[in-house]
Amino acid sequence: MSIITLTTDFGDVYPAIMKGVILSIHPGAKLVDISHSVRPGDVRGGAFILRFASGHFSPGSVHLAVVDPGVGGRRRAIVIKGEKYSFVGPDNGLLMPAARAQGAYRVYEISDLSFYASKVSPVFHGRDVFAPAAAFLSKGQEMPCLREITDPVDLDFGVPELKDDRVVGKVIYVDGFGNVITNIGGEALSGLLHLGMAPKVNGVEMPFVRTYCDAPRRTLVLLVGSHGMAEIACNGDSASTLMGLGAGDRVTISFQ
Amino acid sequence: MSIITLTTDFGDVYPAIMKGVILSIHPGAKLVDISHSVRPGDVRGGAFILRFASGHFSPGSVHLAVVDPGVGGRRRAIVIKGEKYSFVGPDNGLLMPAARAQGAYRVYEISDLSFYASKVSPVFHGRDVFAPAAAFLSKGQEMPCLREITDPVDLDFGVPELKDDRVVGKVIYVDGFGNVITNIGGEALSGLLHLGMAPKVNGVEMPFVRTYCDAPRRTLVLLVGSHGMAEIACNGDSASTLMGLGAGDRVTISFQ
Amino acid sequence: MSIITLTTDFGDVYPAIMKGVILSIHPGAKLVDISHSVRPGDVRGGAFILRFASGHFSPGSVHLAVVDPGVGGRRRAIVIKGEKYSFVGPDNGLLMPAARAQGAYRVYEISDLSFYASKVSPVFHGRDVFAPAAAFLSKGQEMPCLREITDPVDLDFGVPELKDDRVVGKVIYVDGFGNVITNIGGEALSGLLHLGMAPKVNGVEMPFVRTYCDAPRRTLVLLVGSHGMAEIACNGDSASTLMGLGAGDRVTISFQ
Repeated sequence: MSIITLTTDFGDVYPAIMKGVILSIHPGAKLVDISHSVRPGDVRGGAFILRFASGHFSPGSVHLAVVDPGVGGRRRAIVIKGEKYSFVGPDNGLLMPAARAQGAYRVYEISDLSFYASKVSPVFHGRDVFAPAAAFLSKGQEMPCLREITDPVDLDFGVPELKDDRVVGKVIYVDGFGNVITNIGGEALSGLLHLGMAPKVNGVEMPFVRTYCDAPRRTLVLLVGSHGMAEIACNGDSASTLMGLGAGDRVTISFQ
Repeated sequence: MSIITLTTDFGDVYPAIMKGVILSIHPGAKLVDISHSVRPGDVRGGAFILRFASGHFSPGSVHLAVVDPGVGGRRRAIVIKGEKYSFVGPDNGLLMPAARAQGAYRVYEISDLSFYASKVSPVFHGRDVFAPAAAFLSKGQEMPCLREITDPVDLDFGVPELKDDRVVGKVIYVDGFGNVITNIGGEALSGLLHLGMAPKVNGVEMPFVRTYCDAPRRTLVLLVGSHGMAEIACNGDSASTLMGLGAGDRVTISFQ
Repeated sequence: MSIITLTTDFGDVYPAIMKGVILSIHPGAKLVDISHSVRPGDVRGGAFILRFASGHFSPGSVHLAVVDPGVGGRRRAIVIKGEKYSFVGPDNGLLMPAARAQGAYRVYEISDLSFYASKVSPVFHGRDVFAPAAAFLSKGQEMPCLREITDPVDLDFGVPELKDDRVVGKVIYVDGFGNVITNIGGEALSGLLHLGMAPKVNGVEMPFVRTYCDAPRRTLVLLVGSHGMAEIACNGDSASTLMGLGAGDRVTISFQ
């Protein structure tokens, strides 16, 4: 079995076109959509999704990700071959957090785009370059037009600051339930707080709990989410709306 | 072939994580999404979808459903083994209408959650308990930590009341077209009405028809829907919006 | 491998029911969703999507498409067998642009709906007629109830008018990014304009570029899109909203 996952900001229809191209090259590929609802052009959001979803797939899976506001411009198209997974997508940082998380890796520029499609549209590399590249990788086929590079565009989610009585981080993602996921690691948080304590998050007191239903419905809570990161949530409501917090916003957790 | 269907309120990304887990355990599984757009926490809505969609799959399919506002709390995690299908999900009634509809069945509590994942997050049993359980079931693998129970939390869609000149039921689901599906069985309705009659539904007269286009566009109609239930519809518009009817609302069909 | 693609306006749940039916008949089918978000009843929009997505799949694929406001009424149910692909759906023009694009073809009416399901609901031919028909076709199984017809309902995207100093066409589709796709062929446009020129589109001057990022963000541009058609776009914003253009609207490109 060879899995190819897809993560894009393409919404409707365009992902299916990529699947048609992939299956024409590699009929046995097993395709799994991670998301096609990344906000248009939101490279950081896509990188977060890919980072946390990719690791649950079998070794050998190929992760194809396209959030690519610079399509057809000067940004490079890259392939990353790692210990556990391969990645295909634009060289804008999208793939890097996921690649780093899976172990050692090497990065290659796709040096001849036309190797993959005789006619490459400058507006849809997802179809004409990345989908064929992922299909070839997944088939285990030799790919001649890869040139190793050592300077891929990087991206990370930042490092929270620990002060005496507080930790200051930022929001890296808001999920579909409105849960606010921060860049503050869950283990660090558990080292600073005990269950039942009520720290202030951006000035709002909320209990530190184990799971969403450990507080009355529609109560804000702080917990270690399924991504292993500090998460602000509200069972039955959107913590993001209630707190007015979106990706990139600052989050201060005070222990008083 | 072994099919695993997925029905959740998870929206984006989280279903893909469950698929990665399933395919890591059972690479040959064929995954079919029933829906990931159940309203957050709407156990009844999820139960309706599962009840009416599940029966169209091949015998032997495993139906994995997670609408689970009590995740990580005291509610049990269950497996139902039935004549035709198996079901996996939380013990909150979600699985019961579908299980009953497919014939005889037995219900088991998953007594040791950590059998499935060494580290179970209290906020994502879909990933750490239910997905692995469904994968094992679908592989036909022996599952040691199941303890039969006889008191699963139940849920049904209610029984409509038949009076002299009217039947009183309720809305169980509004679909994406805005069609309002009731708990009044289609056969009962057809016994009470003839095509062309114009009963009043909550006071609004509308023709009883065979299909959506048997009335002018944007006209409210009553018909027997594809689920076999009485349905209020409007070709080219949302009957739900026009009638102000949502899940749980009372529906009175008067024959005058 | 036998691919069946699905294109509908069904949104949630109903596509899964069709998949259950297909896999019950043809367990080996590989199912690919093209879209289930066609606007309800928008046959032209569905036809556009099918026309441009279908051609990327392997020869032998079966394209099942259901945008069918006349379901259960007098419109015929049809199967098209073409040089490269087969198509299944309602006889309302939905399948025709895609069928024409793939080469020679013959059109057949499904003369006995009950061949496919013992009990055909007049409101869900997708489940009871089209899904089984697609499954049989994909299996290569003989289908007895097909009668050739020569008068299928047709639909096309119109032919733009070329005048001395302008070309007048119309919008055929707006994609999820808000890109406005016209019926003006990209080759024709490239013959009339050079990169860097700034024609007026409906009175608004905008550069003719190669790709979305060839102009500053949030600037309207004209380009040849990935469908090979003239497209009005805006990197980082919705050209459809900015220009007030939707499907069917007139587009005049003046060369001054």
